[in-house]
Amino acid sequence: MSLRVGIVGGGQLARMMIAPAVELGVQVSVLAEQDGMSAQLAATAVGDYRDLDTVAAFAKDVDVVTFDHEHVPQDVLRALVDAGVSVHPGPDALLYAQDKLLMRARLDELGIPQPDWAAFSDEAGLQSFLDAHGGRAVVKTPRGGYDGKGVRVVSDAAAAADWLGDLPVGGQLLVEELVAFSRELAQQVARRPSGGLVAYPVVETVQRDGVCAEVLAPAPHRSDRLTAVAAQIGTGIAEGLGVTGMLAVELFETLDERLLVNELAMRPHNSGHWSQDGAVTSQFEQHLRAVLDLPLGDVDARQPWSVMVNILGGPAEGTLEDRLPAALADHPAVKVHTYGKSPRPGRKVGHVNAVGDDLDAVAYEARAAAAHFS
Amino acid sequence: MSLRVGIVGGGQLARMMIAPAVELGVQVSVLAEQDGMSAQLAATAVGDYRDLDTVAAFAKDVDVVTFDHEHVPQDVLRALVDAGVSVHPGPDALLYAQDKLLMRARLDELGIPQPDWAAFSDEAGLQSFLDAHGGRAVVKTPRGGYDGKGVRVVSDAAAAADWLGDLPVGGQLLVEELVAFSRELAQQVARRPSGGLVAYPVVETVQRDGVCAEVLAPAPHRSDRLTAVAAQIGTGIAEGLGVTGMLAVELFETLDERLLVNELAMRPHNSGHWSQDGAVTSQFEQHLRAVLDLPLGDVDARQPWSVMVNILGGPAEGTLEDRLPAALADHPAVKVHTYGKSPRPGRKVGHVNAVGDDLDAVAYEARAAAAHFS
Repeated sequence: MSLRVGIVGGGQLARMMIAPAVELGVQVSVLAEQDGMSAQLAATAVGDYRDLDTVAAFAKDVDVVTFDHEHVPQDVLRALVDAGVSVHPGPDALLYAQDKLLMRARLDELGIPQPDWAAFSDEAGLQSFLDAHGGRAVVKTPRGGYDGKGVRVVSDAAAAADWLGDLPVGGQLLVEELVAFSRELAQQVARRPSGGLVAYPVVETVQRDGVCAEVLAPAPHRSDRLTAVAAQIGTGIAEGLGVTGMLAVELFETLDERLLVNELAMRPHNSGHWSQDGAVTSQFEQHLRAVLDLPLGDVDARQPWSVMVNILGGPAEGTLEDRLPAALADHPAVKVHTYGKSPRPGRKVGHVNAVGDDLDAVAYEARAAAAHFS
Repeated sequence: MSLRVGIVGGGQLARMMIAPAVELGVQVSVLAEQDGMSAQLAATAVGDYRDLDTVAAFAKDVDVVTFDHEHVPQDVLRALVDAGVSVHPGPDALLYAQDKLLMRARLDELGIPQPDWAAFSDEAGLQSFLDAHGGRAVVKTPRGGYDGKGVRVVSDAAAAADWLGDLPVGGQLLVEELVAFSRELAQQVARRPSGGLVAYPVVETVQRDGVCAEVLAPAPHRSDRLTAVAAQIGTGIAEGLGVTGMLAVELFETLDERLLVNELAMRPHNSGHWSQDGAVTSQFEQHLRAVLDLPLGDVDARQPWSVMVNILGGPAEGTLEDRLPAALADHPAVKVHTYGKSPRPGRKVGHVNAVGDDLDAVAYEARAAAAHFS
């Protein structure tokens, strides 16, 4: 068999597939948006992922096409599949990662627990949802949001006026119940085209300003019931939507201990970066194995605790590399991962993983090491 | 600071530096001997490493030059250093990895324990060594040998006649005592140009037909004394010879429990492949950190036991990739590493690492997984 995976998108998720690909003997190539991106080393083409000819030409020399992001248009994806290209995840699954309204409707059909939600196209529709949910709610654009973008907490209908004004004819926005949660969790699952599936340990994600700041793996203080329900939700979504490759399900744990689905991602995800140094099989290796329909790897943690802390923004002056000597000197056991991106406020430019027996010590180590880069 | 490492040589050792380089943010480039080599993904140049112009042109765009092998001629190395290029390990150290006669003489001066040895240039010289050592000895060509090549056990002086006949004027061969050993060990050490040094746990290496077949890490049944003496030998050699980067010292453990130095390698080494999945810092990451004079990483084992088994030769029919599905299905927790090389009898084409709490179980797992590829 041949093991050539083409990744559309040259960001850090594509970059982090390079290491396990080289070790396992998978030939990765990348269709990058421009020169000098994170996954530059494996870039074999530069072009617009919205252009069918560009993507089809890239797909010619690979066995499977997969993705660094979920933005490749449906018509491009479907044309590839029609031309016989193996695409994982496929358009029928990716649809639900691309459109949050479709996702909410489909999860309801599957009986997956999620916040109350509604589609609306005018202020009256939003106001009626607000009235029924204590006067506050979360408005989302169905497409294109990430890292807190396209998401807004509102307490009156006028606060969505600008987004409503930008809606195309027949367009709708999504409004969701503002969930009273005790914390946020994430469940990752990998699924093969031929059906095999594995569920990673559920993790706790800590968000700041709508962006993932750190991840504790596995989630502390988790009951067996919580672990099982999270895995059941992840498995149900992967199978219900026909996801292939890695699936990340962001979850709210409510004050009354229910789990509700927040967002989905059908690719390696920030909530799984801990697995590079903390799990037997990292999410990046697992994604490659899954999209190639190879047997999936063991998802057990290598150590009792892993903590991942994002490097957000990077140093105000100089480069990440300038800070490396001091960080490595003070923290010889942490693993520093950088993305080859220039520092910019709020930008994810790298992360740090620490592992060990004692959660407090591991978290301190990861945070202290990451602080060297801010 | 800038982190650009140029590796001379495109073999599997260069290939295995790619993964940690990408994660740490080190830009690696490779001067490959030809197209399509193991480290192809990072190859930026193809050319003859014996040609100064070729190597000097390659060195222009990097901060440090290091190596996949020890074959770059001294005059090329010295010209680079004279031109201001940072070369690690440097020519003064590499000399002792290139010439076994110089190595033996220098280790004697440093008081490092090693087998009895002598230089000889005719049959009479060899016969006199044989007479003094029970009639059997090991003859080696001082240069160019590896994986059992250039090494011959002899019991009469005529058995070296062909090598003697090929000697240039003034040339010498090396003869060494045939050591009665209980097993073979390897000690790895990393050393920075500014002097920092770390010693990995000593490991046991199992050879078949002069080639490393498997490695048990750390060495089973080791006393604290053995661990300390091995580390002391490794440290003494690294400091005594001024080695920078990774140093591997192959050792005999004698029947009377002494350690004697067999061979040296100044680069990542087969005896350290276990560290990719079994140590906090792999030898490949450590080598990059060391040659860049970055602080060295923790060398602790992540698990009580790691076992590395080489994939030698590969399948008689088909490719390594053909065997991957069955191997991964049967062994979801092992890590398979392949080198992008075509199968050929005796050739090192990949290896398998297994880790865990129970040595017998770990060794079984690694051997069974590797057997899928033969």
